[in-house]
Amino acid sequence: MPPVEPAPTLIVLDLIGIFVFAISGALVAVRKDLDLFAVLVLAGTTGLGGGFLRDVLIDATPPAALADWRYLLVPIAAGLLAFVYHPALGRMERLVTVFDAFGLALFCVAGALKAVDYGLGPLPAALLGMVTGIGGGMVRDVLAGRVPIVFRGELYATPAIAGAMVAVLMERGGLPVVVAALTGASVCLVWRLLAVWRGWQAPLPRGSASV
Amino acid sequence: MPPVEPAPTLIVLDLIGIFVFAISGALVAVRKDLDLFAVLVLAGTTGLGGGFLRDVLIDATPPAALADWRYLLVPIAAGLLAFVYHPALGRMERLVTVFDAFGLALFCVAGALKAVDYGLGPLPAALLGMVTGIGGGMVRDVLAGRVPIVFRGELYATPAIAGAMVAVLMERGGLPVVVAALTGASVCLVWRLLAVWRGWQAPLPRGSASV
Amino acid sequence: MPPVEPAPTLIVLDLIGIFVFAISGALVAVRKDLDLFAVLVLAGTTGLGGGFLRDVLIDATPPAALADWRYLLVPIAAGLLAFVYHPALGRMERLVTVFDAFGLALFCVAGALKAVDYGLGPLPAALLGMVTGIGGGMVRDVLAGRVPIVFRGELYATPAIAGAMVAVLMERGGLPVVVAALTGASVCLVWRLLAVWRGWQAPLPRGSASV
Repeated sequence: MPPVEPAPTLIVLDLIGIFVFAISGALVAVRKDLDLFAVLVLAGTTGLGGGFLRDVLIDATPPAALADWRYLLVPIAAGLLAFVYHPALGRMERLVTVFDAFGLALFCVAGALKAVDYGLGPLPAALLGMVTGIGGGMVRDVLAGRVPIVFRGELYATPAIAGAMVAVLMERGGLPVVVAALTGASVCLVWRLLAVWRGWQAPLPRGSASV
Repeated sequence: MPPVEPAPTLIVLDLIGIFVFAISGALVAVRKDLDLFAVLVLAGTTGLGGGFLRDVLIDATPPAALADWRYLLVPIAAGLLAFVYHPALGRMERLVTVFDAFGLALFCVAGALKAVDYGLGPLPAALLGMVTGIGGGMVRDVLAGRVPIVFRGELYATPAIAGAMVAVLMERGGLPVVVAALTGASVCLVWRLLAVWRGWQAPLPRGSASV
Repeated sequence: MPPVEPAPTLIVLDLIGIFVFAISGALVAVRKDLDLFAVLVLAGTTGLGGGFLRDVLIDATPPAALADWRYLLVPIAAGLLAFVYHPALGRMERLVTVFDAFGLALFCVAGALKAVDYGLGPLPAALLGMVTGIGGGMVRDVLAGRVPIVFRGELYATPAIAGAMVAVLMERGGLPVVVAALTGASVCLVWRLLAVWRGWQAPLPRGSASV
């Protein structure tokens, strides 16, 4: 297990991603009329859940978010913010979607590169990148009692695994980590935003309604 | 990773907490008309789930409950008991609530102090204490197909994290572990029972119904 | 932690079990009209989820399926197959049930023996065998928004824990691993198929409907 010493830039990007996801989790709780505690828990699980899943699977425990208390303050702050200002945030849905795409791009690349650091091959590492990006939202939806939104409607997971794969392959090809990370994140971000903007969907099974 | 040798008293308290939580999980399964197996599984996940989550996150694997078969007999016994005597237990709802508050108090403190033993700071340790206390019930509710009850109604998680924080800070301040544990558990227990008795609720977001 | 070098035969059996479970997960997604991504994710979580749970609990991380990319191709292939040929697979429900029983038998025994290799006692090892066999399906059902099917209707988990226990005790008694594994798997398989064929059910709590 390598000593992982992420660069300060990466930590800041990571915290921004956690913040954005935590806001989305908190808004789900607010819309379900849940109480303050539920808002904070859904903010925390959405912001940190994907990273927890990844860290437990690659044995990078305790997860960074538990070893460093600053990681815990971010979702708490996001949850309190959403609890108080949810009407304004609700009106900024488009902005939240854009931020969420940034979070997804950051998480899928950071998660995949961390998995590579822990010795995983390219395909498993890309999958763990996707898990990092979508895992928090899936835990959020299961706790909120709904089928994960990532299963329905616009493309969400495909950009994540594509961006993760690009980053992993570029780093493996000898390019500097920063270049690999930025390229992979851009692939994910642009794809995701185009999918939202143009309403792209993942294919549905043919004739499934009649099954 | 320290060799953790919990005192016999702590083990007995731990087993009581598991038993009480397992009863609550089994009663949920009985009320949903699930079969004997579901009763046993919900008894087991409710009694042991919080500790499993904690142990996986702090890398204290395999969890104590898997390394020591006596831990497994307690939820099985609780499940069988609830399966047979559920009408009587259903009438003792008030008593079950009081026992459950004891379980919560024991688990949040024991979980937090174990996390401290594994090197976590005060805030993460207190959060893991809360996870130990409420995690089993959350897994129970997700498996039973309902939004976790901890998200609704009376205060439940707040007393847990408060008690855990008190215990962690007192131990850090140099007080004997027993004193820290008893004080933290009392804070959680009294707060929780007062919340039940007086109907205290966590705050709801303002105007959320109109979102 | 022992270096685990499973025999080629065991790997092939493992891959067959993953394939069969992945098909069952993919069919659930198709029937819920979910998109291609959801079909692949439910195929993957159903095929690999039980093993992931076991490996995380016994600290055999990263799980085999993440260290070896061939393990990941199997659920992807099963998901694509089910996505395209679901009408035909839907008509072969009886065949899928039989294959599923084979998967259950393989997984419960393989999971239990792996837990023994990692130092667990007989009862915890048998329980982890059951978790390996039923865990993937439980994750599938929670993600698909329904109460785990293992909680309802025909006997499913009981044959799994029985087969796992037989295998563990026979190996402990000094018999060759192959003999222990085959006997345990046969117990699980025959019991499960008889339960399907004769409609055996786990007992229900008496008078529970009136609670």
